[in-house]
Amino acid sequence: MKTMRAAVYVKPGSIVLEEKPVPDVGPGDALIRITTTTICGTDIHILKGEYPVKPGLIIGHEPVGVIEALGEGVTGYEVGQRVIVGAITPCGQCFHCMDGHQAQCGGKAVGGWQFGNTIDGSQAEFLLVPHAQANLTSIPDGLTDEQVLMCPDIMSTGFGGAESGHIRIGDTVAVFAQGPIGLCATAGAKLKGATRIIVVDTVPARLDVAKQMGADIVIDYKAKDPVEEILRITDGRGVDVAIEALGTQQTFESCLRVLKPAGTLSSLGVYSGKLTMPLDAISAGLGDIKIMTTLCPGGKERMRRLMNVVASGRVNLNPLVTHRFSLDDIEDAYELFANQRDGVLKIAITP
Amino acid sequence: MKTMRAAVYVKPGSIVLEEKPVPDVGPGDALIRITTTTICGTDIHILKGEYPVKPGLIIGHEPVGVIEALGEGVTGYEVGQRVIVGAITPCGQCFHCMDGHQAQCGGKAVGGWQFGNTIDGSQAEFLLVPHAQANLTSIPDGLTDEQVLMCPDIMSTGFGGAESGHIRIGDTVAVFAQGPIGLCATAGAKLKGATRIIVVDTVPARLDVAKQMGADIVIDYKAKDPVEEILRITDGRGVDVAIEALGTQQTFESCLRVLKPAGTLSSLGVYSGKLTMPLDAISAGLGDIKIMTTLCPGGKERMRRLMNVVASGRVNLNPLVTHRFSLDDIEDAYELFANQRDGVLKIAITP
Amino acid sequence: MKTMRAAVYVKPGSIVLEEKPVPDVGPGDALIRITTTTICGTDIHILKGEYPVKPGLIIGHEPVGVIEALGEGVTGYEVGQRVIVGAITPCGQCFHCMDGHQAQCGGKAVGGWQFGNTIDGSQAEFLLVPHAQANLTSIPDGLTDEQVLMCPDIMSTGFGGAESGHIRIGDTVAVFAQGPIGLCATAGAKLKGATRIIVVDTVPARLDVAKQMGADIVIDYKAKDPVEEILRITDGRGVDVAIEALGTQQTFESCLRVLKPAGTLSSLGVYSGKLTMPLDAISAGLGDIKIMTTLCPGGKERMRRLMNVVASGRVNLNPLVTHRFSLDDIEDAYELFANQRDGVLKIAITP
Amino acid sequence: MKTMRAAVYVKPGSIVLEEKPVPDVGPGDALIRITTTTICGTDIHILKGEYPVKPGLIIGHEPVGVIEALGEGVTGYEVGQRVIVGAITPCGQCFHCMDGHQAQCGGKAVGGWQFGNTIDGSQAEFLLVPHAQANLTSIPDGLTDEQVLMCPDIMSTGFGGAESGHIRIGDTVAVFAQGPIGLCATAGAKLKGATRIIVVDTVPARLDVAKQMGADIVIDYKAKDPVEEILRITDGRGVDVAIEALGTQQTFESCLRVLKPAGTLSSLGVYSGKLTMPLDAISAGLGDIKIMTTLCPGGKERMRRLMNVVASGRVNLNPLVTHRFSLDDIEDAYELFANQRDGVLKIAITP
Repeated sequence: MKTMRAAVYVKPGSIVLEEKPVPDVGPGDALIRITTTTICGTDIHILKGEYPVKPGLIIGHEPVGVIEALGEGVTGYEVGQRVIVGAITPCGQCFHCMDGHQAQCGGKAVGGWQFGNTIDGSQAEFLLVPHAQANLTSIPDGLTDEQVLMCPDIMSTGFGGAESGHIRIGDTVAVFAQGPIGLCATAGAKLKGATRIIVVDTVPARLDVAKQMGADIVIDYKAKDPVEEILRITDGRGVDVAIEALGTQQTFESCLRVLKPAGTLSSLGVYSGKLTMPLDAISAGLGDIKIMTTLCPGGKERMRRLMNVVASGRVNLNPLVTHRFSLDDIEDAYELFANQRDGVLKIAITP
Repeated sequence: MKTMRAAVYVKPGSIVLEEKPVPDVGPGDALIRITTTTICGTDIHILKGEYPVKPGLIIGHEPVGVIEALGEGVTGYEVGQRVIVGAITPCGQCFHCMDGHQAQCGGKAVGGWQFGNTIDGSQAEFLLVPHAQANLTSIPDGLTDEQVLMCPDIMSTGFGGAESGHIRIGDTVAVFAQGPIGLCATAGAKLKGATRIIVVDTVPARLDVAKQMGADIVIDYKAKDPVEEILRITDGRGVDVAIEALGTQQTFESCLRVLKPAGTLSSLGVYSGKLTMPLDAISAGLGDIKIMTTLCPGGKERMRRLMNVVASGRVNLNPLVTHRFSLDDIEDAYELFANQRDGVLKIAITP
Repeated sequence: MKTMRAAVYVKPGSIVLEEKPVPDVGPGDALIRITTTTICGTDIHILKGEYPVKPGLIIGHEPVGVIEALGEGVTGYEVGQRVIVGAITPCGQCFHCMDGHQAQCGGKAVGGWQFGNTIDGSQAEFLLVPHAQANLTSIPDGLTDEQVLMCPDIMSTGFGGAESGHIRIGDTVAVFAQGPIGLCATAGAKLKGATRIIVVDTVPARLDVAKQMGADIVIDYKAKDPVEEILRITDGRGVDVAIEALGTQQTFESCLRVLKPAGTLSSLGVYSGKLTMPLDAISAGLGDIKIMTTLCPGGKERMRRLMNVVASGRVNLNPLVTHRFSLDDIEDAYELFANQRDGVLKIAITP
Repeated sequence: MKTMRAAVYVKPGSIVLEEKPVPDVGPGDALIRITTTTICGTDIHILKGEYPVKPGLIIGHEPVGVIEALGEGVTGYEVGQRVIVGAITPCGQCFHCMDGHQAQCGGKAVGGWQFGNTIDGSQAEFLLVPHAQANLTSIPDGLTDEQVLMCPDIMSTGFGGAESGHIRIGDTVAVFAQGPIGLCATAGAKLKGATRIIVVDTVPARLDVAKQMGADIVIDYKAKDPVEEILRITDGRGVDVAIEALGTQQTFESCLRVLKPAGTLSSLGVYSGKLTMPLDAISAGLGDIKIMTTLCPGGKERMRRLMNVVASGRVNLNPLVTHRFSLDDIEDAYELFANQRDGVLKIAITP
């Protein structure tokens, strides 16, 4: 039996590099040799035991690689082709996928998210891709691994926040939190035609990158109350769309409080605890407010479109890759990322 | 000075019939002689002091009447014409109206609702209509006052709940609470093509009327847990759209709990206190859930469309008018309605 | 080799019953034993040589049947289950399906239509279903074959016309031609909330069925000019949505001429020759007119929804099945249907 | 009686500068002192007698100016304020405006276009603005007249083409013709998130400006067949959206021929003659093709948004103003513009 190195969840507080068998390729599957992957904030939730997964599971859901083998029935691809796969791997053929809800594949909440959640993930030398026909997308010539590394998750998620907000040309948009997903939401808001983008964070390096992504105004929430400041900037009008990109009661509530009547809150955060809506912040239910929650869109068409964005040069996400580690050193990478040291945004991991 | 009888808010607990001056008609206004009006649940909130208005204000926002006088600049109408006016009276010409958000006219939350809220209302012999050019709609021949009496508010609101839910042909829809607005939401869901409508209430008479409005399945929440029952009926799939038509934490939360992944909660209730979302009910923010809040759509085009619905016979709202009172007896009508006695749904008030 | 009877296209003017081999079931396929099928207007185009297909092809794309065998990898179904399959059989996994354009599967125009077009069809004892995982839908208990026989094509197409028109509550809608698809468009318009539906045809029996489907006003185009009549009925306003359900220059142009400014033409017809738009009918391009063309939506979720509509009793399409033939007599059925004799609407064919 | 200079349509071939009375200001009106205006391609249609207007009418529909006087009932503005007004001046209060179709105000085709069409226009020292409450928008500080001169018509129209096409992030878009409106459509497509924009024209200067507006690929139709070239570039896939910005049979038909199945043709041109759709270009009606025609959106909210776009610096339309003339020399300006001499795109006219 061939083996490979892989980052495995052992117990709360412990993700370690282990030797695991290279998976067998069944009908409809593909085996990818990973060339680059990365660590997501969600992986830190798993590490901390906040999001429970099965001990022994390989973690990671952001794969860039090369096709190593194709299962029976997978057509139109060839071994050796460079591909990415979305963090979400919809089947494309269930009632829910065919109704357009691919992220909720199978009609189970979060059902489309399998890698590093319900099946082995991408922080390994090899990755078995289910529903390969629906999920493999060839990387356009001339794009490097790092250029497409954000497509599987954070670019798809962040852009999804802008899309779910139905941002229109000329909109004013606020984005709360400028971690990797918030930064992609900022880039997505600009791509959709928002012409005044106000972002909120406190880390200077993040606010700097935010400006590169399209932020017109940055607010350090430690220096000024962001709700007051946004209402002041908009002459009391409020914003058309507020994007929540952190997952806390405070940022969610602040989003509600900066919305114009009939505005839209687009929520990307993964929340813990419970979420409360003060009634004055939603006009007791009479404000024509919309709240949209969005899970990372996946599938090969989504990946194709996102790589087109990268190829066009419209958006440059290179500044998000701040660190590089070998897979052999992934435990160090986790340590750095979990503690948000050294201005880390995203870490490229190469087996 | 000519005077008229009118139902006036005096203080919490007290709405009384008084003599008030007949309003003067300024440019852009119209004066309507009220022929029929009604009492809304919101008026009861006002009566109880839960929704504060200025003492001395005439209450009511559901007018059917005849044009008595037209202000300068109002064209295309004539004195003596039978008309209705929506509960919401948008100006049509502010930035927000022109952006399609007529209920939030002026960019103020609930800004379009003026009658019996910020200006004198319809429970009187005469009503002054602001922005008359945008708000008067002629009643089609052959329709009685009672047939169109629901159009200004509850039909517009209830249908709005179905519309904001983006109900599609073949959807399964749950409606929580079958008071007048919930019943109209049920009728609206049927009109939009829902093919399985499940409603929840406990008053037998309301559940009976619900069936007339299009409910396929009725659940008495005192007999069965509605969340469990709806999940059972839908084989665990959940509903495409859940409509909240009461304004309580429990019904709001139940709506969340019966939604399918990627489902839509369409909220019509006026809430008090605060609203909490348990994270399991929204998949921690990852369920692609949408929450839409809707205030009664107003304006003359809306009223024209709703009266077309009545004229078509597609929906028969006559069963909603359960009682009739003279304006002289409106204090008795309030007493009956506030206490929900005698199976009351809506009361026609005639000056 | 097992054989079966099947209606085979031989040459223009000739579709004959032949013995053909029962297909083998490959991975991802399903074999259906047909219990009921029908003949479509498109089959007549094939018969006449107007729509070219390969000689030797089995015709038909409206299957109701029982699962006879399941190919490798098809899960969640069992042999003996009663199922329908849409006329359009999308793969669910190509870029175009995953972008929501299932009828144009593979990015080829009309690419989703395979049965009786590019692969053997349903007018036979057995049918091989490609992409079975995406296309088999179980028939709800209690529904007969004939009740669901319209789902695979004409109900899906007709309803699609109402959906693509974005019909809203209170709309006035015109439907030109009341053959089987036009009748389903009328039923769909009603389901979507149109409150004044005006239909145009000349066959009395069709106009009668149209009233059962929801038509409020019927116009015999031989008795009155339908454009003038519709403009008269709408007081010169025009209709919100016009649905073309025949496929001729005259009906297409008439649709344009009855539209209100900013109205929508929803086109279902299969045209021959070329289509011309007189500029006055489209305000020289400045009328904010929309033209939507729609191919029959397919896939298992669509079929599930349509059978829900049937099960709900909201729409009763039984009057559309006017004749019944055995598969053995299908040549006679073609003769009757091609000549539109005896008031035929749809013919149920049973092997 | 005060008089003013104005460009007046006399007869086909003749627009001349004349003295005309300064208009009186009635209730609801505003009088604007024009500081900058421009000539539109539509004005050339009027000049040539191709689009008939009443002799004696003042031409022009692109006003930038200063409020000189406000009629009774117009509030929230003050004399001396710098404002623009859209080419389209909806009332905001008719059934059609309140239904969201402001460009078709009054339910008459092109009903919202009044300036220089049904009432006196902006190529004059003063302009009377109807429905002023719905149509005046204050110019943000720091923006020059020329910076906002494109907002009233060509920017609104061009962006409207991108919006009606429902362009999504990652779309490939073709724009046929790069005159002023086509260039704005290109800029709008980029703002909406198109990541591959292919434009077609033949004038080198226009193709150069197109690149500044966001074109990724330019095609000179005299050097290459644009349909073949676009299909080649897209690997036979076709474009998601094609925008027609000229108004000829050839460009319209080319748009159809480069569309992917289920693509959208967004039409901005003003056509003459008639328009023909070859059936192969629309898959005989079965291609799920959409055709949207768009008239310039107007009203004060639209103008507010467009000036926000200018203020944001996201789009720089300065290169479109290639020439400047005094109002006194407007006849020369017409001569230059009508003959498209000297690389003219737009001419700023200052009284």
